[in-house]
Amino acid sequence: MPRVSEEHRERRRQQILDAAQSCFARKGFHETSLQEIFRESGLSAGAVYRYFRSKDELIGAIAARSQPLVAALLEEILDADELPPLDEIVARFATGVTGRMGPSGAVRIAPQGWALATYNRPIHLAISELLDNTRSWWVRVAERLRDDGRLPPDADPYAVAVVLTSIIPGFILQRLVLGDVDAETLRAGIRILLSSEPPPPHAAHPAPGNILNQAL
Amino acid sequence: MPRVSEEHRERRRQQILDAAQSCFARKGFHETSLQEIFRESGLSAGAVYRYFRSKDELIGAIAARSQPLVAALLEEILDADELPPLDEIVARFATGVTGRMGPSGAVRIAPQGWALATYNRPIHLAISELLDNTRSWWVRVAERLRDDGRLPPDADPYAVAVVLTSIIPGFILQRLVLGDVDAETLRAGIRILLSSEPPPPHAAHPAPGNILNQAL
Repeated sequence: MPRVSEEHRERRRQQILDAAQSCFARKGFHETSLQEIFRESGLSAGAVYRYFRSKDELIGAIAARSQPLVAALLEEILDADELPPLDEIVARFATGVTGRMGPSGAVRIAPQGWALATYNRPIHLAISELLDNTRSWWVRVAERLRDDGRLPPDADPYAVAVVLTSIIPGFILQRLVLGDVDAETLRAGIRILLSSEPPPPHAAHPAPGNILNQAL
Repeated sequence: MPRVSEEHRERRRQQILDAAQSCFARKGFHETSLQEIFRESGLSAGAVYRYFRSKDELIGAIAARSQPLVAALLEEILDADELPPLDEIVARFATGVTGRMGPSGAVRIAPQGWALATYNRPIHLAISELLDNTRSWWVRVAERLRDDGRLPPDADPYAVAVVLTSIIPGFILQRLVLGDVDAETLRAGIRILLSSEPPPPHAAHPAPGNILNQAL
């Protein structure tokens, strides 16, 4: 019989990840030492090393455990007989995200994961998987909306998903950095845009005269 | 007469910021030493210290120099007699941002600035200013669109600005991490959403039963 049950191991693992998450949120991934994580978790170095060998592994595991939470929220929405209006879907997602922004919430360290993903290969893998899965889910939402006649029949679900996938990171950033946005405001803004006058047929490419491009 | 002209000083300053930007993009803000920045810039430690005393000051200055570029792009759009369609405005912004994502482009290190802003006070100041100014600009766009009758007369420009401010960071993230989105796709997605069926009048709050909230 195993001395340490699987359940016990899993609790330990989560306890270590919670501790790492709190430390990273407080002073940043790079400024946090493994010693501080041992202390925060109340475990010995040896006990922690049994589960994780580096901070990279810790942040990868934190990104990975967000996945089922995001999936559960999103599947719940897709499982409904009738899909809620798009502004409500986004607001639910934003509300879920907001609830995980407390001092030790996973979403508080999301921008650190994004930053690491731009130059650290293993973390890139974890974050790109999360982002890609989230976007695939938005593709399914867009397909449903199109099939239900709530988006035009020739709508490209991928293009819609690119926009919808963009919104949540920018919402997280505004809330963490400016501190003044909430899910209801986001919802109101989306409702207004969905209710606005459709744009006229468009010229093939963005207009020339883009100062920012000329300058660079 | 001053030995070193103001123009020379400014060129030097930009040269140092370019070097820091390349290093940060390649191996990350924390993993970059000041020695590496001296080497990359081709200047001595003493010469660099005359302009910047720390990596924090460097990243703050990098964020600050994005400001006039963003402002120029945005003012150009607002100065037009007729505002372009919203999808084109966002696409122009996204095109501008895409043009600065090269190996040493400022946008490549934007996520590192966002991450630092969540726990480093001086950098928080620089990033929140950039984000707040960008959002104020989107408020002005939303007001113009409303006054031109392209958004409903009772539209809240702030709520619209919260959504529009959200889109670009999420676009940057998808492009840097997944590498497969461009301004034209973003534009197409926005066009579809703007052309979609308006949502029905909505209940006061997001529906209950949010699994993600229940779980936390």
